[in-house]
Amino acid sequence: MSPVWETEKRAPVLGIIGGGQLAQMLFQSAISIGVEVHILRSEGDQSLNSYAKELTVASSFDATTLYHFARRCDIVTFDHELIPAQIVSELSSRNCTMLPNATTLALAADKARQRRTLAEAGIPTPRFAVVESAAEVEAISAAFKFPLILKAARGGYDGRGVVEISSMDDVISIFGTSKMPVPYVVEERLDLDAELSVLVVRSSNRKEVSVYQPIRTRQHEGICVEASWPSHLPRSIDARAVEIALSIAELVDSVGVLAVEFFVVGGEVLVNELAPRVHNSGHLTIEAAKTSQFENHIRAVLGFALGSTDFISPASMVNLIAGPDAKEHRPLQLAAALSVAGASLHDYHKSPKPKRKVGHVTVLADSTTSASADAWESARRAMMAPLLGDPMAALGTHQN
Amino acid sequence: MSPVWETEKRAPVLGIIGGGQLAQMLFQSAISIGVEVHILRSEGDQSLNSYAKELTVASSFDATTLYHFARRCDIVTFDHELIPAQIVSELSSRNCTMLPNATTLALAADKARQRRTLAEAGIPTPRFAVVESAAEVEAISAAFKFPLILKAARGGYDGRGVVEISSMDDVISIFGTSKMPVPYVVEERLDLDAELSVLVVRSSNRKEVSVYQPIRTRQHEGICVEASWPSHLPRSIDARAVEIALSIAELVDSVGVLAVEFFVVGGEVLVNELAPRVHNSGHLTIEAAKTSQFENHIRAVLGFALGSTDFISPASMVNLIAGPDAKEHRPLQLAAALSVAGASLHDYHKSPKPKRKVGHVTVLADSTTSASADAWESARRAMMAPLLGDPMAALGTHQN
Repeated sequence: MSPVWETEKRAPVLGIIGGGQLAQMLFQSAISIGVEVHILRSEGDQSLNSYAKELTVASSFDATTLYHFARRCDIVTFDHELIPAQIVSELSSRNCTMLPNATTLALAADKARQRRTLAEAGIPTPRFAVVESAAEVEAISAAFKFPLILKAARGGYDGRGVVEISSMDDVISIFGTSKMPVPYVVEERLDLDAELSVLVVRSSNRKEVSVYQPIRTRQHEGICVEASWPSHLPRSIDARAVEIALSIAELVDSVGVLAVEFFVVGGEVLVNELAPRVHNSGHLTIEAAKTSQFENHIRAVLGFALGSTDFISPASMVNLIAGPDAKEHRPLQLAAALSVAGASLHDYHKSPKPKRKVGHVTVLADSTTSASADAWESARRAMMAPLLGDPMAALGTHQN
Repeated sequence: MSPVWETEKRAPVLGIIGGGQLAQMLFQSAISIGVEVHILRSEGDQSLNSYAKELTVASSFDATTLYHFARRCDIVTFDHELIPAQIVSELSSRNCTMLPNATTLALAADKARQRRTLAEAGIPTPRFAVVESAAEVEAISAAFKFPLILKAARGGYDGRGVVEISSMDDVISIFGTSKMPVPYVVEERLDLDAELSVLVVRSSNRKEVSVYQPIRTRQHEGICVEASWPSHLPRSIDARAVEIALSIAELVDSVGVLAVEFFVVGGEVLVNELAPRVHNSGHLTIEAAKTSQFENHIRAVLGFALGSTDFISPASMVNLIAGPDAKEHRPLQLAAALSVAGASLHDYHKSPKPKRKVGHVTVLADSTTSASADAWESARRAMMAPLLGDPMAALGTHQN
């Protein structure tokens, strides 16, 4: 059956819930392939405010607001996973096409449920427990060695909702004062050899599936600060990560981009977590791959043919994240990033706050070492304050 | 002196006169580098109507309308060269920054003046004369052999305003009936070995100049149907074209992208014409170069550092141009172009008319031969009618 926009001989209308940088880059891609875009943003979202014609501000993302928005669109997708899966499920039953679907979103939004589902399917993850109280941590403390990592099952992002604890005293204090809702996923702190991200693209027809080769990521204080390709890990590691990511896409019935984040520990590949959307680790696909994750996400949710996921060059992407003592700066200063030859800037048009991602730069080069050096130099020039995760900052050679 | 937007700590506002596909691709690039965009479109322009927030319709492009538009922008640039240079000059004297400037625009808009200026500077062009009547053609007919090419000095584009004449009878009929205003540039029809385009980017500070390596173009009925890189011509030809293009950029004091189109005839490189703007031949730089012509144009007019013009892959771009008997089709059908692996589509969101460019596809590959084959196949799938310039159409193997 032809989609309704073909029958009506008009362009398809893609709705995006959220108006941050992911919506921004989806918007740019949609223009190229003839897809109209309607955005439903929250009051705080800034990225597209000066650009997008069809942009609605929602004071609340309740079922009624979302329903009225979805009725104006052919397909609705997301730039975050904050919409409760039950609302998505309810709208789907009222003839709104929401992709990814409620099943995928429910798993992504709940790390405890996610870990259990993966473990039941035989997919390797770090050893974990799900706890709701200090007593439950105490009960498992014989089997798990401190330091432990506690991750709130819901609501965390960019390092928020994650704490490291070194003793039962810490545990008691966390459960006494934390504002994070229970449950928590608990795991031992691992000595990581590397972190990887694999982006799987699965079409709404469920038959076409593509995958990008693994992207190496580097985190600082729980926030991704750099992503690069190729991974420079043994082929068997890359192949194993791709294999696992593809099986997870089937398992969770994802549509569009699904990002699977991995820990590499002692030659083993362990799934850390999932994000059912375009992902920070994949921003370098804009310049470094034949088709970007953004265009491929749109193609997938609309049922278009998927684009080539081949990389065309080694590349590094560095996030522009103000350090914790950042002074206020304005979008323009990001343009200083352009003074490094070959640097591609993506400005998110956000007012800065400590630890907020306000943009990123990508550099293609003959090697990831060279791309990384140039990307960091470009990022340093863009930011007036020390960059989060800057590898040179600790050496005291940071330049403003 | 810092630009006003730096002093005022806000994003720069770029005004674009015209709302066609060039404005569309400039708009997409501006989002990435933190530049706001205001568009002044004519009633017929369609490309950005569903997308751009700041888009004004002008019923006339008179000095008053342009002045009010320019006052809302920091810098104004163009997606076509239809604004009279004297208006641009007048606005410049009233503190509006219009780039490229009136000098460059005046030369671009008048092919007779352009050819004379180039010839006076010793730049090789085809042998030409400027004529205003049949009698003047008669007067030069001893020195020029038929068939001759007559090009209206003003107002032509995409093959319009250009006629081939094989006898004095044709000449008389042309001057009797043509609606094209005199004068005409007359030249002999040349047997071309190839056509090239060189894109020079010159910054508003006049100190930074970058150039893309020559792009090979193929025309059909006076319209560019394909562009590819590399040119596969001898290095000395490419080098000569680059050298000439750089000298022309200085000569005409261009700011932003200047496209110089060349004929290659018997080992010689002759300048055909100039376009002081982003150019159809450069669309493949979006995917195939480190920085696209669109981003580099914006960087140049705003005085940002220029981006790398290095190509990263052989590539071919094919225009989606409906043949003269095209039936009406809708934007969606262009998405069929995406079913060729590796094809990047740019949909211009235009209703189709015979010979109108409604989009283009670009393919990167290991060779231009392979890229070209895939780009044409992708273009065929996108269009419901025969494509203008399709190399397979004449062989009767055209697929719908």
